[in-house]
Amino acid sequence: MLAFMNNESWNKTLETGKAHFFSRSRNKLWMKGESSGNVQEIKEILIDCDEDSVVLKVNQIGDSACHTGYRSCFYRQLDNGKIKIVSKKIFEPGERYGKA
Amino acid sequence: MLAFMNNESWNKTLETGKAHFFSRSRNKLWMKGESSGNVQEIKEILIDCDEDSVVLKVNQIGDSACHTGYRSCFYRQLDNGKIKIVSKKIFEPGERYGKA
Repeated sequence: MLAFMNNESWNKTLETGKAHFFSRSRNKLWMKGESSGNVQEIKEILIDCDEDSVVLKVNQIGDSACHTGYRSCFYRQLDNGKIKIVSKKIFEPGERYGKA
Repeated sequence: MLAFMNNESWNKTLETGKAHFFSRSRNKLWMKGESSGNVQEIKEILIDCDEDSVVLKVNQIGDSACHTGYRSCFYRQLDNGKIKIVSKKIFEPGERYGKA
């Protein structure tokens, strides 16, 4: 998955050992897994050359990072102009997230 | 590595089979490797759930994606508050890029 961090989410990630991001659509700090339970326990942090992005290697609780239920948010492959699903579906989102 | 794409760079990537990005600092289309020779030949394209980011799996010509000479831009690991280098250095940037 790819997500945005601000200073607060970066600091929370380091303090807690759990991945925190900043939701630009909801304008708030967001601990990954706070509603789904699919928390990400940090195993390793890699920093890029110009210091504006990081890779978090994690232990993915629940075995799924994506709110769609797939293991990866990058669950679709573009193959000669056609899209096919290449990731494993772990859960059905309708059963995991309550309807409002 | 992580980089930004606009429509033009996305289309050029699909047309040519080589990774193109958009440089926001230089405000121009950028073929990865156009100055270093370290072109990225596309092997696979993965699309994320909300369709605003992609993973390109590539054949990395020159064996290095990073302008610093490391194989990966994410060549440093944050380990208990200390930074250590964890990627292989492939070339010396001073020898690869001409001084202006």
